[in-house]
Parts: sequence; C-alpha cells; structure tokens
Amino acid sequence: MTPAAPAYRRLSVEERRSQLLDAALTLFAHRLPEDVSLDDVAEAAGVSRPLVYRYFPGGKQQLYEAALRSAAEELRLCFDEPQDGPLLPRLARALDRYLGFVARHDAGFSALLQGGSVVETSRTTAIVDGVRRSAAEHIYSHLGVADPGPRLRMTVRMWIAAVEAASLIWLDEGKEPPVEELRDWLMEQFVAVLTVTAARDPQTADLVRDALSSAD
Amino acid sequence: MTPAAPAYRRLSVEERRSQLLDAALTLFAHRLPEDVSLDDVAEAAGVSRPLVYRYFPGGKQQLYEAALRSAAEELRLCFDEPQDGPLLPRLARALDRYLGFVARHDAGFSALLQGGSVVETSRTTAIVDGVRRSAAEHIYSHLGVADPGPRLRMTVRMWIAAVEAASLIWLDEGKEPPVEELRDWLMEQFVAVLTVTAARDPQTADLVRDALSSAD
Repeated sequence: MTPAAPAYRRLSVEERRSQLLDAALTLFAHRLPEDVSLDDVAEAAGVSRPLVYRYFPGGKQQLYEAALRSAAEELRLCFDEPQDGPLLPRLARALDRYLGFVARHDAGFSALLQGGSVVETSRTTAIVDGVRRSAAEHIYSHLGVADPGPRLRMTVRMWIAAVEAASLIWLDEGKEPPVEELRDWLMEQFVAVLTVTAARDPQTADLVRDALSSAD
Repeated sequence: MTPAAPAYRRLSVEERRSQLLDAALTLFAHRLPEDVSLDDVAEAAGVSRPLVYRYFPGGKQQLYEAALRSAAEELRLCFDEPQDGPLLPRLARALDRYLGFVARHDAGFSALLQGGSVVETSRTTAIVDGVRRSAAEHIYSHLGVADPGPRLRMTVRMWIAAVEAASLIWLDEGKEPPVEELRDWLMEQFVAVLTVTAARDPQTADLVRDALSSAD
C-alpha cells in the first residue's frame, strides 16, 4: 500500500500481523505456550509491547490461537498436491512437505498436538482437529473416493493418528530415522493398513486393487 | 476398620474415597469435566458437598485428577494378561478388556483422551501418557523383548495411537463395527505394521518370525 519504501521499513497491517505471528510461532516452536510472554513476542519482532496489544487486544490467548491458525493453514498447504500421476508418489510428496513442517516447527509442533498447555481450550483443539479432517479429506480426494464408508474412514484416520504419533516420537528421537526413511516407512504402513481393511470392506478392496496397484 | 456395621452404613476412609471417585468418574463419563460441579458429585454419591471437600480439599481439579488416575489404574489392569499360550490371543484378550473399558466409560474416555477440557493441564496429560507407556511396556513384555529398539518402539507406539483414534471414532459411530470385529481388525493391523517394520529392522523381523508365526 505504501507507494515508496521510506528509510525505515513501514509495514502494512497485513505484513505487520504476519510478522508478529511468525515471531510468536517461532517462540511457541521452542517453548511451551505458557513460557512465552507478550514481551518475548514484542522483543522477537523488534516492536513495542503496546503494538503487539494493538494487533492482538485479546493478549496471549488470542495471539496463540492466531499463531495456531496460521500454523494450521501452513499445514493444510502441505497437503495440497496436484492430482496428477500415480497415487503413492503424490502422497509421498505431501508427506515430505508435512515432515518438513514438523522438522521446522519442532517443539511448537509437539506443543500444538500434545495439548496439556495452560492455554489449551476447546477452540485450540478444534483448530488441530480441523487440520486432521483436512488431511483425511485430501487423502479421500487423492484416492478418488467421494463418499468414504466407515471402514475406510476409520482406516485413514487411524493412519493419520499413527503419523502424528510417529512425528512426535521422531522429534523426540532427534529426527531419527532420516526423513526419507520415515516417509517411506509411513507410506508402507499406509498401504499395509489399507490392505488389511480391504479384506473386510469392498470399497477399500476396490481402492487397493485400482488406485494402489496402478501406483506401484 | 469398623468392627460391626451399624444400622446406617458407615464407610471407611478408603471406601468413601473410592465411592466419591466412582461417582465422579460416572459423571465425567457422561459430561465434559467443565460441566461437572462438586454439587453434582455430592448428589450422585448421596453425600454433602462439605464431605466431598473434606476428601478433595483441592476441589474439582483434584477430584478430576484423582478420577483420571483411578481410570488410568483401571486401564492398566486391562493390559494385565498372563504370559501363557500364543501371543496374539493374549493381545486380543487385553484388547477386549480395553475396548470394554472404552465402551463403559464412553464420553468420559473421549474427554480423557481428546483434551480440550478447561481442567486439562500438563499433569492430566502426564496421567494419560503414563497409560500409553504402560500399554507399550506390556506389549514389549508379551513380545518377549527386554530392550526394544527405536523402530520397534515407534511401530508399537504408532499402533497404540491408531487404537486410541479407532476407539474415539468407534464411540462416535455408536460402537460400530461390533466390538469383536473391531478387535480382530486392530489385531490384523498390529501384525501388518509389525510386518512392514520387519523389512527395515532385524529385531522386529525376529519377532515376526518367532512370536507372531507361532501364534497363528
């Protein structure tokens, strides 16, 4: 909106907001939310505390939720993958981006998923659940299923829960095994659990026969 | 401790405590913790509010944590299974007891695992994590593994996370599929994910060859 940059950098409202969210996210990524103060955020962003309050008058809870929502949005973008080419490489690319996000945000990702924070509320839980739902929707869409039945849905959501658990353990273990191995291993588990469900569910059986075999 | 029961039933401290915990657990099982008051607990137990406070001077938070710990203890007992006979039927029996617990506590189990409650704290999270650790330890012990390596540990903990997710979805879907089918399906997934890991990990490969095949 500013026609020419003055000597000092003047940020637009949106730029300032996203600068503060980035600073908050970086802090939440390395400390539990309860250990982050608005002073810390102001200092990390190189702005005054009143300015942080001007953007987030609800204080830390509002900032935390906004940072979570911004992280959730970033996570959703990870799942965006064109529906071209064989299925498994598509899922593998989405998983690569997801694991990149996990590696980048590290402790913040753990805090986000594990709850137990003093500012955990049903609203923050809803944000995380929204990301899980979005991940599941992306998977159904790549599987080419418009109306997933209960057994397929349960299988996909179980695998998503297992991937989350793996991500947390992976961070705990200093990002071992290497990310490529973890990604391949998770993909193999995806195929394995779908194959198990295929024996109990015709819809999943069709998928395993069509979508997964054509991707091998 | 009372030598003879008087006309009205006088409970020992331990009996009274466990009566209050049972009442609280039943309430937490059907409502979110934030919707349960100490008055509700007193009424459900048929005692006065001051008596609830005498046993739980920390109020609702203390009662909630004590009820969680008691539920956690009950869950741990589900995993107790003699190390006799083939492995898979042993795990299936433990899983049956676990799913029985899930079915009995229903909404309380969801609230316990999903967090997002106003009284969720790092202490309540630690209680739930303790149950997960205990489940994993029981599985290693039934697998006959004293020192599980990172790949086996990750596989077991991913499966536990998947079982938790399945339990929550199962409750959401009115306990469909029938419990026996869910149990068999979860067992099949256990074998499938261990088999996937076996291709990457010699320790798991030994297990799959010895423990799982002898149980078939």
